Amino acid sequence: MRDFSHDHRWLSINTATVRKQGDLLAIVEACARHGIRAISPWRDQVAAIGLARAVAAVREAGLDLSGYCRGGMFPADRAHAAEMRDDNRRAVDEAVALGAPCLVLVVGGLPHFSRPGSAPSHDLAAARAQVEDGIAALLDYAKPAGMPLAIEPLHPMYAADRACVNTMAQALDICDRLDPGRTGALGVACDLYHVWWDPDLFAGIARAGRERLLAYHVCDWLVPTRDLLLDRGMMGDGVIAMRPIRRAVEAAGFSGYSEVEIFSEQNWWQRPMDEVLATCIARHREVV
Amino acid sequence: MRDFSHDHRWLSINTATVRKQGDLLAIVEACARHGIRAISPWRDQVAAIGLARAVAAVREAGLDLSGYCRGGMFPADRAHAAEMRDDNRRAVDEAVALGAPCLVLVVGGLPHFSRPGSAPSHDLAAARAQVEDGIAALLDYAKPAGMPLAIEPLHPMYAADRACVNTMAQALDICDRLDPGRTGALGVACDLYHVWWDPDLFAGIARAGRERLLAYHVCDWLVPTRDLLLDRGMMGDGVIAMRPIRRAVEAAGFSGYSEVEIFSEQNWWQRPMDEVLATCIARHREVV
Repeated sequence: MRDFSHDHRWLSINTATVRKQGDLLAIVEACARHGIRAISPWRDQVAAIGLARAVAAVREAGLDLSGYCRGGMFPADRAHAAEMRDDNRRAVDEAVALGAPCLVLVVGGLPHFSRPGSAPSHDLAAARAQVEDGIAALLDYAKPAGMPLAIEPLHPMYAADRACVNTMAQALDICDRLDPGRTGALGVACDLYHVWWDPDLFAGIARAGRERLLAYHVCDWLVPTRDLLLDRGMMGDGVIAMRPIRRAVEAAGFSGYSEVEIFSEQNWWQRPMDEVLATCIARHREVV
Repeated sequence: MRDFSHDHRWLSINTATVRKQGDLLAIVEACARHGIRAISPWRDQVAAIGLARAVAAVREAGLDLSGYCRGGMFPADRAHAAEMRDDNRRAVDEAVALGAPCLVLVVGGLPHFSRPGSAPSHDLAAARAQVEDGIAALLDYAKPAGMPLAIEPLHPMYAADRACVNTMAQALDICDRLDPGRTGALGVACDLYHVWWDPDLFAGIARAGRERLLAYHVCDWLVPTRDLLLDRGMMGDGVIAMRPIRRAVEAAGFSGYSEVEIFSEQNWWQRPMDEVLATCIARHREVV
């Protein structure tokens, strides 16, 4: 396993971690100043400053990307199918323009949550089928563009509204069906927050292997967790035993960035950006 | 599948559903008055009125039990091991005295949450091993007493603090190891709130079969869910498609009660007991 204790060369900042403290230009500037080598930006942050300015800012700062957030939200009724398709294609185009190594997919839950305005349905199996069809169709667009798609299994507490792919095994089953050749065009984003509880996590990591492990996200699970979405913890403040998981991910062949992604309305979003980044760096060395 | 639309003979009320509105005596009286045939009481509610009074009240009201809540919380450090063992044995004794068909096990998470005062640990695999050891030991006590143990897989959002058994498959693996003969002494409590999201749910139900399906709990998953513990929904108010799941449970051989268990600090716990029970009856007929 790589030794992270002496530097933070393998730290990436998911820009949602400091989204309340500044726009993407401010985040890029701060990350570069802290010697952080990579970020993973969100589409709304890119849109807010314009794609061209985002591309230029990342390039001028000399930053790598560890991913681009996010495509997905595939379940939709017929009236919203074209919107869903076009939106995802634009996400691929933006990821290409930004030089991202992968587009992260948050696949969506039931159609009325995934694409608001869609007819309500409580058919989770149907939503899952729509997800797989949506990924298959997007793969036909992304593969020629050279943009890998990273399916992010989300915690089961988001199954209804954010993602009905909830385990590594489920994501890898989709990968096996849509990319049996393990070409690297389709894989997973392994986010500790979503998968740490899974008794089959280590089996899933080994099964994924180098070709399918496209991104690795870290934060921590707090006890108590006060909000289902916006109460993630800083690494070391929660209950996730991180080192064994990173050891497994690296043993499976992953050699990329550890991307910090923390949504924290009451705590980290309230602190100055420099304090948050300095803490990410310290915890990356100590506990990731 | 049984037709629930004409009566509520297969409705049971988990007494936590109206725990804020009255003590166990008041709940027993109200259930009997509403023609509800079964309840599943909690240990603290029994303790509050005394075991003997609880036994007498249930008997005089002519109520069945659909379970007794709850044993478990197995992970503990050495200093808390005897407390854990004795506490669980008392739970078995109480379940026997009350005539419960099974003791529901909420197995516990990390030791310092499961048995407060225990030395902190973030080793989830070790906690899971302790759970299995604890169930094995309790089975030696419960089996001669004729009290089946029902492992309740809890939603993964409770993995750290309440239960590190989080899927039907995980619970059934334990059953297979500890009771390979499927004697009926060990099985699962299938609670929709915890398992509805699981892509392997239907496989798990079929695998469990009649001998392992000891209890069936219903409520609903709300979107948004505002609290991880105390914001469960009344059946029909959330996103769970219930009928296909009950169809599968009954096809596997389950013929017992549908037990309503709703923890709802802001909504149902604020309403009069009679209103809650009447709503449970109506929804049991309409959507369960």
